[in-house]
Amino acid sequence: MASSSSFIILAALLALVSWQATASDPMRVNGFVCKNPMEVNADDFFKAAALDKPRVTNKVGSNVTLINVMQIAGLNTLGISMARIDYAPLGQNPPHTHPRATEILTVLEGTLYVGFVTSNQENRFLSKMLNKGDVFVFPVGLIHFQFNPNPYKPAVAIAALSSQNPGAITIANAVFGSKPPISDDVLAKAFQVEKNTIDYLQAQFWENNHY
Amino acid sequence: MASSSSFIILAALLALVSWQATASDPMRVNGFVCKNPMEVNADDFFKAAALDKPRVTNKVGSNVTLINVMQIAGLNTLGISMARIDYAPLGQNPPHTHPRATEILTVLEGTLYVGFVTSNQENRFLSKMLNKGDVFVFPVGLIHFQFNPNPYKPAVAIAALSSQNPGAITIANAVFGSKPPISDDVLAKAFQVEKNTIDYLQAQFWENNHY
Amino acid sequence: MASSSSFIILAALLALVSWQATASDPMRVNGFVCKNPMEVNADDFFKAAALDKPRVTNKVGSNVTLINVMQIAGLNTLGISMARIDYAPLGQNPPHTHPRATEILTVLEGTLYVGFVTSNQENRFLSKMLNKGDVFVFPVGLIHFQFNPNPYKPAVAIAALSSQNPGAITIANAVFGSKPPISDDVLAKAFQVEKNTIDYLQAQFWENNHY
Amino acid sequence: MASSSSFIILAALLALVSWQATASDPMRVNGFVCKNPMEVNADDFFKAAALDKPRVTNKVGSNVTLINVMQIAGLNTLGISMARIDYAPLGQNPPHTHPRATEILTVLEGTLYVGFVTSNQENRFLSKMLNKGDVFVFPVGLIHFQFNPNPYKPAVAIAALSSQNPGAITIANAVFGSKPPISDDVLAKAFQVEKNTIDYLQAQFWENNHY
Amino acid sequence: MASSSSFIILAALLALVSWQATASDPMRVNGFVCKNPMEVNADDFFKAAALDKPRVTNKVGSNVTLINVMQIAGLNTLGISMARIDYAPLGQNPPHTHPRATEILTVLEGTLYVGFVTSNQENRFLSKMLNKGDVFVFPVGLIHFQFNPNPYKPAVAIAALSSQNPGAITIANAVFGSKPPISDDVLAKAFQVEKNTIDYLQAQFWENNHY
Amino acid sequence: MASSSSFIILAALLALVSWQATASDPMRVNGFVCKNPMEVNADDFFKAAALDKPRVTNKVGSNVTLINVMQIAGLNTLGISMARIDYAPLGQNPPHTHPRATEILTVLEGTLYVGFVTSNQENRFLSKMLNKGDVFVFPVGLIHFQFNPNPYKPAVAIAALSSQNPGAITIANAVFGSKPPISDDVLAKAFQVEKNTIDYLQAQFWENNHY
Repeated sequence: MASSSSFIILAALLALVSWQATASDPMRVNGFVCKNPMEVNADDFFKAAALDKPRVTNKVGSNVTLINVMQIAGLNTLGISMARIDYAPLGQNPPHTHPRATEILTVLEGTLYVGFVTSNQENRFLSKMLNKGDVFVFPVGLIHFQFNPNPYKPAVAIAALSSQNPGAITIANAVFGSKPPISDDVLAKAFQVEKNTIDYLQAQFWENNHY
Repeated sequence: MASSSSFIILAALLALVSWQATASDPMRVNGFVCKNPMEVNADDFFKAAALDKPRVTNKVGSNVTLINVMQIAGLNTLGISMARIDYAPLGQNPPHTHPRATEILTVLEGTLYVGFVTSNQENRFLSKMLNKGDVFVFPVGLIHFQFNPNPYKPAVAIAALSSQNPGAITIANAVFGSKPPISDDVLAKAFQVEKNTIDYLQAQFWENNHY
Repeated sequence: MASSSSFIILAALLALVSWQATASDPMRVNGFVCKNPMEVNADDFFKAAALDKPRVTNKVGSNVTLINVMQIAGLNTLGISMARIDYAPLGQNPPHTHPRATEILTVLEGTLYVGFVTSNQENRFLSKMLNKGDVFVFPVGLIHFQFNPNPYKPAVAIAALSSQNPGAITIANAVFGSKPPISDDVLAKAFQVEKNTIDYLQAQFWENNHY
Repeated sequence: MASSSSFIILAALLALVSWQATASDPMRVNGFVCKNPMEVNADDFFKAAALDKPRVTNKVGSNVTLINVMQIAGLNTLGISMARIDYAPLGQNPPHTHPRATEILTVLEGTLYVGFVTSNQENRFLSKMLNKGDVFVFPVGLIHFQFNPNPYKPAVAIAALSSQNPGAITIANAVFGSKPPISDDVLAKAFQVEKNTIDYLQAQFWENNHY
Repeated sequence: MASSSSFIILAALLALVSWQATASDPMRVNGFVCKNPMEVNADDFFKAAALDKPRVTNKVGSNVTLINVMQIAGLNTLGISMARIDYAPLGQNPPHTHPRATEILTVLEGTLYVGFVTSNQENRFLSKMLNKGDVFVFPVGLIHFQFNPNPYKPAVAIAALSSQNPGAITIANAVFGSKPPISDDVLAKAFQVEKNTIDYLQAQFWENNHY
Repeated sequence: MASSSSFIILAALLALVSWQATASDPMRVNGFVCKNPMEVNADDFFKAAALDKPRVTNKVGSNVTLINVMQIAGLNTLGISMARIDYAPLGQNPPHTHPRATEILTVLEGTLYVGFVTSNQENRFLSKMLNKGDVFVFPVGLIHFQFNPNPYKPAVAIAALSSQNPGAITIANAVFGSKPPISDDVLAKAFQVEKNTIDYLQAQFWENNHY
């Protein structure tokens, strides 16, 4: 087997060969163009200046910068990604889920009030106040949030997720801000309120503020 | 190897042996007591009269009867479960997610209006009216619901989930009905409404109505 | 990352990007053409009138209607499928295996006598008579069947399988009806009978009657 | 973390700690007693004189010696096993499946005629004559066999399977030799023959001759 | 199913029930004692002051603080962990591998020269100079290191690994500092040098300096 | 679904369809061209005369002949491979790791002294002298070697690996023979020796001698 016929560094689980690849039909794994290993270089595993700078926060006071397989092609098949989250004073990363990943987070600056809700039957809300250096885990698929309780100072966290493409579903956006909107008949009954309350909630929809 | 030393029928992925097992310390896989294969019988893979009877629906007009590994121990390690869902006229299985499973559903009686919302960036709402015999898929971790639009007739569906313990998170219950409640400061900002709207929503919390 | 660059709703396990995709070289995952998420619609997760109608049964008195990834492209990577099985009076879904899935089944109409055989060493036959609403599990890879013992009434079941493409191997067809046939020298010794018995069995081969 | 608190060498996929373990309640993973890593030794990964000696063959002329997790506890969670197969002149390893593993085989002595049958729709029989040093693959769950066509000389093969407990189902034994027997009504229809043919086949049942 | 009978929040992949659990035989998954979900609390997902403080570095000028399932029991089955790495001026996290995880790393302070070597055939060394905020990926199982080229300033990085117990193998320690030592006959030939060179290398063995 | 529209025999885990495939854009899974199942034949699962002949050994006295997915396309997605290893008198398969596979090995001829080193904290060296027919296991990702202690006779082993593309990293080649070389500043500190010792070791680099 010729050394140029393996993509070992890109394949954690899958075996690839390139001899069939042609200029008109590049090799793909999970939809990514795979390079001949002799052409792979360190930049395929690198993203510059990705997570160091404070970023402008959105309407709810947060900004998530996610580095996943779309930013670093070398993550393909490797099942992990990383994010920086900026929080304005009193800002939050609102209740959301990751359909394909567990999240582990540590606080770099400030303090964060974090929590998640367990599945049905219990729907227990487990929360904690985190200080710099504390670590917290949000299990896969559970609704969770982070809130910066400090009215004067911002906060910053680094999070890692157990998928190269964890996905995120911000509950408020998905339930009340979907395109097109979910019928207010359905939501009114689901939330046990009048339609006009749902209509009011749907009216608050704002641009996506989440990774 | 003695025939009594393997649990092949219970182990789709894992190898088990029983010779260490003692009366005082029964074998477990995933927390289940594993039987000596000579003692396993058909009842370990069976649940009687589980999914045939219409059942009283809850406040939002549905009732989910899930047969998972807790009802059929033989499902242990096998990664699938099945449910019957009853819908009252105008009833719904409200917006929820399954943190560990994709769902495939078919309508046995009546009609259902179903949909799910895609992840952030899009938050597209994809919906469909289902008639008897139609099949629909809800991808893992996405928020979805089923609604019976008929004001006079009930509906019934059979669903299957790609986990022996899919879990379920009913959005309204988890967000507004958790125990203890999530701070209304956090939710008010997340949903971009006044606290009193959140307080009103939290006041609607009702007993869990979901698998 | 542009919203048009993710296929989150199609990727339960894999990360995909579409910017490399061109009209002449569409994106694929597992060989399926993946759509730009803005082009995905509910029909990609839907199959109309799939499982409601009784269907003509084959020579052994059954008909399996499987809805897998080939009928619903949205099942790609999601690991589940669903089937309706019709049974004529005294009909059967003959002994078979699914090489890539566990099966969970419930009876919609009539009664079924079902069973499976455990692996070598034991080769124990576990069986049960199922009535409407009962649920039974057939572990991955084990030989199993369903038989309608009623000489006058048909039966119907809904089954789910833990793979988007479970595959099926009907024992009689695969052993005695393969193309080309397996040598009768081999089969005569395997079944400890005379060649003419094998030749007789091979002569019974009939068109495929199974999913 | 104390060095005595990890079972890294036994855990390919799972993390274990032992501090909870007590004499009265030994640690288990997949039902195996796990040792404190300071107590693990090379013998936990070793089996002496396992695959070198010719062994007496059974009624169909073969003998499979499987080294799996039950012989080498260190294989726990590692997903592989190995076997030696002896074939008498004109002997065979009769049609069987492995519900949890793909098999790769090479011939050490003699020649083997091998084959497998693809899933339904095709049920194609793919076969090959193997000489010393040839390698062949039997995909997971498919019915396959090996036959020694030489009337004078034995044959020997080494096989590896992609599971620490692959399981095996010998078709003839499972279908016609199960305990208790499958109803001849069911089998007669499945194989499209008279009951007396089934009764004759069931009468040929012999002691298990397979891993 | 009683709410007290599920461990959903601890089971990302596995279903557990506790009714068999007794005081004398607590529930375990992967060897961890599982709690009744009503007894689980936020502390099971939390580690205080874990990653904020600079720590004394070892002989090669680094110190890895890993938060894995042994520090946070709630990580059980969730497949991720996080670490802080301190580097003294000219310090390094020496060449090592993680047998069960890919690593993604970002620089918090200072600069790091990092690299990994691809598998055989190529053995290509891919390296990069990282500044604050840069992100780099080390694929599962490949030999990699980080070096702080600054003779005056320390450096700090946060890394995440795609396993709840990634394991680590420091090459120098494992090859030249194992207990007992590997025979110098073997190592002399492997490294194509005289035994005395190996003996000299083995003499340099020092206390483990790595997660 | 037409029989020609499934690749069941090539898909252990993934579902494939071919109708989109065109001559100008062949189907691929993991980068392999997939055939229409009617065109697949036994040769896609076969490699002739692969593992029977003694082969010339390299500078350290070994030669590994690996049969993986690059030699047998039918192994695609099936997660196993097999190798023959020849050892000259006093030859060795030097310390190496497989980033994606556990290895199980049996001795065909001669004797082998084998061992592996556990992860950090312990770095325990577990070793064993193997005779013909003995079986030994090397867990995924751990550094291991085999050495033929006999000064007069060669040795031969058959090994199997739990991946269709296990990969291999020979420690000496990767650390001291990478292209380009790793900085001797880094290695000198890592191995706690003078640069000239590292330079001497790097000078010993020789052509790749390993799978």
